[in-house]
Amino acid sequence: MTEPTHDRDAAGARDTLLGKLARNIVAFDANRVEGHALARAKACIADTIGVMLAGAQEACARILLRVPGVAQAPGPCTILGTGIRTSALDATLVNGTSSHALDYDDISGDFGGHPSVPLVPLLLALGQERGGTGRDFLAAYAVGVETEIRLARAAHPVHYDKGWHPTATLGVFGAAAAGARYLKLDVARTTMALAIAGSLANGLKASFGTMTKPLHVGHCGRSGLFAALLASEGYEGAADLLEHHQGYFQVFNGAGNFNPDAVLQDWGHPLEIAGPTIGIKQFPCCGSTHASIAAALNLAQRHDLRAADVARIEIMPNRHRLKHTDKPYPASSLDAKFSVQYVVARALVSGNVRLRDFENDAYLEPEIQRLLGLTQAVPHPGMGEGGPQWGTEIIVTLKDGSRHAERIANMVSRDGSCPMSRAELKAKFDDCSQRVLPAGQADALFEQLWALEQVQDMKASAAWLQAGAA
Amino acid sequence: MTEPTHDRDAAGARDTLLGKLARNIVAFDANRVEGHALARAKACIADTIGVMLAGAQEACARILLRVPGVAQAPGPCTILGTGIRTSALDATLVNGTSSHALDYDDISGDFGGHPSVPLVPLLLALGQERGGTGRDFLAAYAVGVETEIRLARAAHPVHYDKGWHPTATLGVFGAAAAGARYLKLDVARTTMALAIAGSLANGLKASFGTMTKPLHVGHCGRSGLFAALLASEGYEGAADLLEHHQGYFQVFNGAGNFNPDAVLQDWGHPLEIAGPTIGIKQFPCCGSTHASIAAALNLAQRHDLRAADVARIEIMPNRHRLKHTDKPYPASSLDAKFSVQYVVARALVSGNVRLRDFENDAYLEPEIQRLLGLTQAVPHPGMGEGGPQWGTEIIVTLKDGSRHAERIANMVSRDGSCPMSRAELKAKFDDCSQRVLPAGQADALFEQLWALEQVQDMKASAAWLQAGAA
Repeated sequence: MTEPTHDRDAAGARDTLLGKLARNIVAFDANRVEGHALARAKACIADTIGVMLAGAQEACARILLRVPGVAQAPGPCTILGTGIRTSALDATLVNGTSSHALDYDDISGDFGGHPSVPLVPLLLALGQERGGTGRDFLAAYAVGVETEIRLARAAHPVHYDKGWHPTATLGVFGAAAAGARYLKLDVARTTMALAIAGSLANGLKASFGTMTKPLHVGHCGRSGLFAALLASEGYEGAADLLEHHQGYFQVFNGAGNFNPDAVLQDWGHPLEIAGPTIGIKQFPCCGSTHASIAAALNLAQRHDLRAADVARIEIMPNRHRLKHTDKPYPASSLDAKFSVQYVVARALVSGNVRLRDFENDAYLEPEIQRLLGLTQAVPHPGMGEGGPQWGTEIIVTLKDGSRHAERIANMVSRDGSCPMSRAELKAKFDDCSQRVLPAGQADALFEQLWALEQVQDMKASAAWLQAGAA
Repeated sequence: MTEPTHDRDAAGARDTLLGKLARNIVAFDANRVEGHALARAKACIADTIGVMLAGAQEACARILLRVPGVAQAPGPCTILGTGIRTSALDATLVNGTSSHALDYDDISGDFGGHPSVPLVPLLLALGQERGGTGRDFLAAYAVGVETEIRLARAAHPVHYDKGWHPTATLGVFGAAAAGARYLKLDVARTTMALAIAGSLANGLKASFGTMTKPLHVGHCGRSGLFAALLASEGYEGAADLLEHHQGYFQVFNGAGNFNPDAVLQDWGHPLEIAGPTIGIKQFPCCGSTHASIAAALNLAQRHDLRAADVARIEIMPNRHRLKHTDKPYPASSLDAKFSVQYVVARALVSGNVRLRDFENDAYLEPEIQRLLGLTQAVPHPGMGEGGPQWGTEIIVTLKDGSRHAERIANMVSRDGSCPMSRAELKAKFDDCSQRVLPAGQADALFEQLWALEQVQDMKASAAWLQAGAA
């Protein structure tokens, strides 16, 4: 009451950046999620649900359910890995936290974070509460990704470099966009959903390495959904939140440290989900080791290598990848996730790298320890400062004296330029989902998600996901 | 998983700023809330509950209750102004939003915001859920105020000037502190509560003038309580959140723009609640008009003035107060809140300024319109740039030719240097509470709050507050 109300009429709201963004969200043609875009969207959605099932067993998700009031409101929305059904808000909070618990969900360099986890838990919950088709789900997912990555293009690199956690601080806009689209809000209410969400944005990278990192994700999905639900009931925020002299970009980034034009520029052309930026993580360990794992698997498959025949292993990652992954003898499961020596040995011994390889004392298995004793890791002499940063070379010498080498020039995650095959996705999905779902139910769930565009009523997803419901 | 976990052992956590702050919170002696500090704390708590009752009727609070999942979890905590009981989390969200709906709650210049609203709704809810005494409530309130204002001393003026909404962005630490204290968490868990809360901090001043401003308050109280409840179950955040190279101050304020020493310096000596910084708003309109209202009421009382005898009114506020309150003929109830001419006329006509004076067409009453025709407002010629900014002088000329003047050198709100009397507090409380409580119940509630230190079980407060429960 000490400051006069701003003059914010409805006509003015339409001309703000958020108003224009809302027009794009409302006008988006669901039929554009087709062909390559459809395949990429479905792969990311199925993968997100897989890692969510795996993450549901983690402490960060389980503790949430012990807080009085959380997941206790009545509602039809499943908490993955449990028999609990509750409100869309709380299902989004808990499932969103699960989805990022293992840091095994998809990533985007342009986003500076994880694009699917602010969106998929929310849309699953809304689908279970409100119905809607698989096509509705895919369209809302596409506008969510489009919104959050376009905002990231406006905000980065300063936004990330300052210390914000973009998955949460920018993801909350994507969550509000996806929620508003799924709820079929009009332009005015979609604008308000975005405005409310932006003023609820939070998340510091200083919390990385603690349970609060995945909590940011569940919280941001919940806040985006909350903003959309509030807007649908007539709640109001500041339509000029992006261009206000003390608006989102000014306050989060600082004057001159952002490019607001990027929010709308070529919005949806091409679709972010169809571009190369989003990659799926194939292995449940540090991204800096993924190229070396892939090289080892390629070698093993091509030459039908058996671990018992190995006499020597040389690993030569790009120096920037080796710095924090040079752990010749890991001393804990967490250590093992950051040991390029361990994950290469594991790839040769098991023909894959899976969640169970970072549980209990898997890193102490005798055959693994034997290979670690034969392993040397050094920075690659030919992969320097100027070129790609995520390359590696592996040379395996067998007891018969033969040498086999495999070089990968650059590989972070399995992005649009080298997508995972259905078989690879299914292998990861099985590895993740077996923590909480029986095998038959996991197979059926994967089939449903693989045919998401044919689903007539997303309420059915509650049955697919409820543990033991198969 | 792409970034290694920080090395954050329990011993290190104790030496961080948040660890030291947690020690202060846990060690705080409840008996220090005595004498003047006790009187100030009780006045602020009673006043906050009064404005919360009034705010419960506002759209920003009512719409919240239409969102599926909000206030639907079972629990013993009352939603003020309704018959609903629910979880502490949701009661804090809704009551917190109500408490700031009218912007009529207490303020602090040093805090740059409203110190009680992040705390009182939370503590009421916890009291109703967990029990505890009035003394526990007062101690938790005191450490909450202490925490949020000490953080503000470290963060301002840059924090406020950049565009953050301190009631929410700093209040969330106070809420976590109050919640942790009320839950009797140990030092390690209190540290985690503060760490989680700080990473959930949000709120942009760009949302001022919309419903999202009070939403920030309910949301911050809920987030602070959520952090405390999570910590009580073993959830973890970054203990080094304040001094981390990308920590709270670095990211919110920017390098060099804060003074972390102020967080702990002389913590609790003197207590912030006993100092002059917190003031109660006596009138439900723009703070820039309060001195003029007080001057008019003083005049009317001293000379037993009757509005019918008035021939001329001269109002001379400090020029900085007049700029946005010079509205000779307000055209709406909102306009009337910012019209120094209207509120002075209202003080002379009604002998007070109350909520109903800004409802419907109160500003159009014939006697008011007659006085507005006799009123001139000009900047005070003698109150200049250098001195206090919140002074005023009123001169009333009667039909018999007599002139009566009243000058107030400086007055923002009724702070510790000029506290409201019990009668004045009760008059405001009655004006606020009559919106939702019968008079007898309001009287009993005020008596209970006035003797808060004698309450044996705060669960009883649910009955005091439930509409129609008297």
